[in-house]
Formats: sequence, structure tokens, C-alpha cells
Amino acid sequence: MRRSERIVRLTQQLLDHPLTPLSLTDMAEQFSVAKSSLSEDLAIIRKVFEEDGEGFLRTHLGASGGIVFEVDVSPARERAFLTDMIQHLTHADRILPGGYFYMTDVLAKPEVLRMVGKMFAKLFAPLSPDVVLTVETKGIALAVATAEYLNCPFVVARRDHKWSEGPSVSTNYVSGSDRRIQTMSLSRRSIPVGSRVLIIDDFMKAGGTVKGMTALIEEFSAQVVGTGVFMATTEPCEKLVSSYRSLFSLAQMDEAGATVVIQSGNYYTSL
Amino acid sequence: MRRSERIVRLTQQLLDHPLTPLSLTDMAEQFSVAKSSLSEDLAIIRKVFEEDGEGFLRTHLGASGGIVFEVDVSPARERAFLTDMIQHLTHADRILPGGYFYMTDVLAKPEVLRMVGKMFAKLFAPLSPDVVLTVETKGIALAVATAEYLNCPFVVARRDHKWSEGPSVSTNYVSGSDRRIQTMSLSRRSIPVGSRVLIIDDFMKAGGTVKGMTALIEEFSAQVVGTGVFMATTEPCEKLVSSYRSLFSLAQMDEAGATVVIQSGNYYTSL
Repeated sequence: MRRSERIVRLTQQLLDHPLTPLSLTDMAEQFSVAKSSLSEDLAIIRKVFEEDGEGFLRTHLGASGGIVFEVDVSPARERAFLTDMIQHLTHADRILPGGYFYMTDVLAKPEVLRMVGKMFAKLFAPLSPDVVLTVETKGIALAVATAEYLNCPFVVARRDHKWSEGPSVSTNYVSGSDRRIQTMSLSRRSIPVGSRVLIIDDFMKAGGTVKGMTALIEEFSAQVVGTGVFMATTEPCEKLVSSYRSLFSLAQMDEAGATVVIQSGNYYTSL
Repeated sequence: MRRSERIVRLTQQLLDHPLTPLSLTDMAEQFSVAKSSLSEDLAIIRKVFEEDGEGFLRTHLGASGGIVFEVDVSPARERAFLTDMIQHLTHADRILPGGYFYMTDVLAKPEVLRMVGKMFAKLFAPLSPDVVLTVETKGIALAVATAEYLNCPFVVARRDHKWSEGPSVSTNYVSGSDRRIQTMSLSRRSIPVGSRVLIIDDFMKAGGTVKGMTALIEEFSAQVVGTGVFMATTEPCEKLVSSYRSLFSLAQMDEAGATVVIQSGNYYTSL
């Protein structure tokens, strides 16, 4: 096999298996090539990925020795995405009656999900989450995209108890915005004891829903290691959760005056 | 830039942009290289992708001339996946009270979503869907994964009317399994007139939910071009929808006798 062909295969395998240790010994066998040639191939890929801010190839210290691909996004691409998205979202016709903000169309686009998934994976990978949690419905796609780049499963808390999930744990929580008591539940089988849980959601006002998810996770003897939301409102500025990262901040939304003000969130604040 | 580095970049860009026309002129400029060299690079990538059953590079006839990456999965990998998955799913402890079958854990795994997304995208790409539709909640991740490889948005029908989606269209439908009348709704803004809609869901018994989605789509003057489900029950064998493709078939589930029988679905039946 020619080097150029090997490089196509290696690039494909690495991108298709983020955060998955790949054994050099296995790959050398698969490609019938010496490990030294393979290392040279990987050095080329590493160089390009790092130059482009696409990812890192980390050496994995294990029994067989291997390599792990970790997603990266260059700050330039992040800022371009945030700027574009703010422009795209800042439209008065996104204001819905009842103080809702329409962004379902944006969260339905593959390129947006890919970018958000990569940005959250990059941000939270150092915290080594082993499961991504969201609550139905609109945050699910973001949780799926983030979990893909973190190579871990995602779980969805249901708004009510569902028989199709088997035995479940339920909790009541107070929605921070309208002060109503709500229920959410999670299948007993879904989160192993001791799991490190990353919460991902689309929108956060006061943080009541995230607080509810945190309480639910405690019932599983697991811990929340981070929270990422696509958009958080600037008001109330005191949230019910102490630490979260948002990509965008909804600073103002006035239905009568038809104005929307969106800013970058606190994504760049260090964890 | 060395050829090997260009090949890493090209492979990455193609994989990250399925079904997206990429202009040769733009790439030649970006890499400061002659189009003839670029064509040689692409020929190498095309050869490897086709040998591995990873995808096709189609020439795109447009103003600027370009190339489109289309996802493929080799029949060998498909069959290996189906066999593994059947073994993984055939466990009596997946039987839940009330005739439900537990597979939430399986549909939460990135490698499963990736594979199912690729298989559905490969199967339905020739029908040129321009939106993927599912109903909340458990089919959403499959719809997201499929839409990613088809490079189109996904939309989620809600089980009830949600104010946070803005003006919606609702329909009542009869759930085929328990004969109850249910409601689903879809945001007015979510599906343009004339759209070609691919329905993706996790589970199908009689097909009442899919029939409901089809009725809903007609209200948008759009058309359903295909339906893909992860698992369908063999009984009732007369479904309410005439044409669908399933990856798996739940042939038997006996709570008392603790037996489950799962087979391959009708995925390989020609469309």
C-alpha cells in the first residue's frame, strides 16, 4: 500500500473514532507496514491537524501503545462561527409570543451541530465526562453531537415517567422562569454509579432545569462535572447553578419594540 | 504543501462535508496547487474510499465544477453490524412490563448512531430527501445521525402543541398498537412547501405513528419519500404504512417465557 493511500485510511479512521485509543500494533498489522513508517504517517497527520486546529493526536500509554484523536477547533474558526451565528439569530421575527425565542431551525442544521459538538467536546474533554445528559426535547441533538466527539453515550431525562424506559428515578424541580413544579425522570439503567456527567442543553433562563438534572444525577450516586448551554439569558444574572458555559447570551428581547440583542456567552471564561 | 499533507486536508474536508459540493477551483486556490495535482490527490482518495466501502467521490457538474462525497458502507460491514447488534439485543432482560423493549442504551452509543446514520443515508440518498422528520423522543438521535450524512436539516414532531415552537400544525392520529387517539404537531416554519421528507424512527409496531407523520406532512404540501426504522415488530404483519425499511425485526417477545427473537429487517429489500 502506498503511503498516500495509508494516509487516507489513517485520517479517516482517526476522524471516525474521536477519543478512542487505536493500537499502533493493530494498525501496522492491518496495513502490513513497519511501525516506524506508521509513525511517520501519523507525524504528517498530526502536523496538519495541529496547523489547521482540527485536533490533536495524543500518544496513548497502554499495554499495546497507541494513539488517540482529540477534537480541536481553532479560536479563529470559533470566533467566525460565533459572529456568523449572532448575525443569523439577531432577527425580531424569532421572538415568539410568551417570551420564547425561536432557534429550532438553527439547531437542526448539520453544520451547526457539528461545530457546537466540537466546541463543547473541546471545552469539556479535559473534565473526562463519561456520559452526556440532556432533558427532552430541544437539547437532544446538541447532546448527541457533543457525545459523538467525546465518544461517550448520551442520556435523555424525560419530562414525565415513561414506561418504555423501564424502572426510573424521578424528581420534582421548580422551573426557574415560571416557578412551576415539574417532574423529570431518568431510566434506572442509564447512568452507572460514579459516572462523570456532562449536562448539555439548548437554552437556560434561571437554571431550574439544570438544577433539576443535577438533583436527579445525585440519586444515581454520580456527579455533574460540567454544564454547557447553547444560549443563556443574561437576566436573571443570578442563576440557580453556579457554573455553566454558554455559547451565546440573549441580552435583550422586546416583542413590542421588535428588538433582539445577542452576545457571545461565557464560553471563553476558563473552567 | 506536500502531497501527503494535502491528502490529509482533502480527506478531512470531504468526510466533514458529506453531500456538499466542494469546488475544485476553490480548493486549488486554498492549497496553491494546480487543478491537475488536485485531481490526482482526489483519485487516490476515491480509490481508497471505494476499496474500503467508505464512500464515493462524485463529480459535481456545476458552474465551477467540483466534487461531492457520498457516504457508503460496505455490505460486509453492514452484515457484521447487524449480526453483532442482534446478539447484543437478544436478551430477555430487555423485556419491560407492558410489552416494551429496552434499547435506549444501544441508541445512545456514538458508534451505533454513526453506523445507523450511514446505513440510512446510503439507502435513502438516491431519493434526495431534503429534510429528515422524526417524532419525539427516542428516534431523535437516529434522525440527527442520518441527517448529518445526508447533509440536510432534521425536524421533530412534538407529542403536543408547544408554544416555544411558534405557530404549529397539529394532527390527530390513532396509535396502531393501543388504538388511542393521540396528537402530534409540527412548527409551521419547519418544513418548506414541496419538501421531500424522509421519516426516521426507532420503533414501529402497526405504523400508526408513521401514518400520523405522513398525514402531518401533507398539511405542509410536502411529500414523504421514504421511511426508515431501527426496529419493526413482525406482528402485525399488515402495517398502516405501505413502504418502510427496517434494520431489525422483533419476531418474538415473551415476558413469561423470557424469550426474545430478533432478526434482520427488510433493509436489503430494494426500494
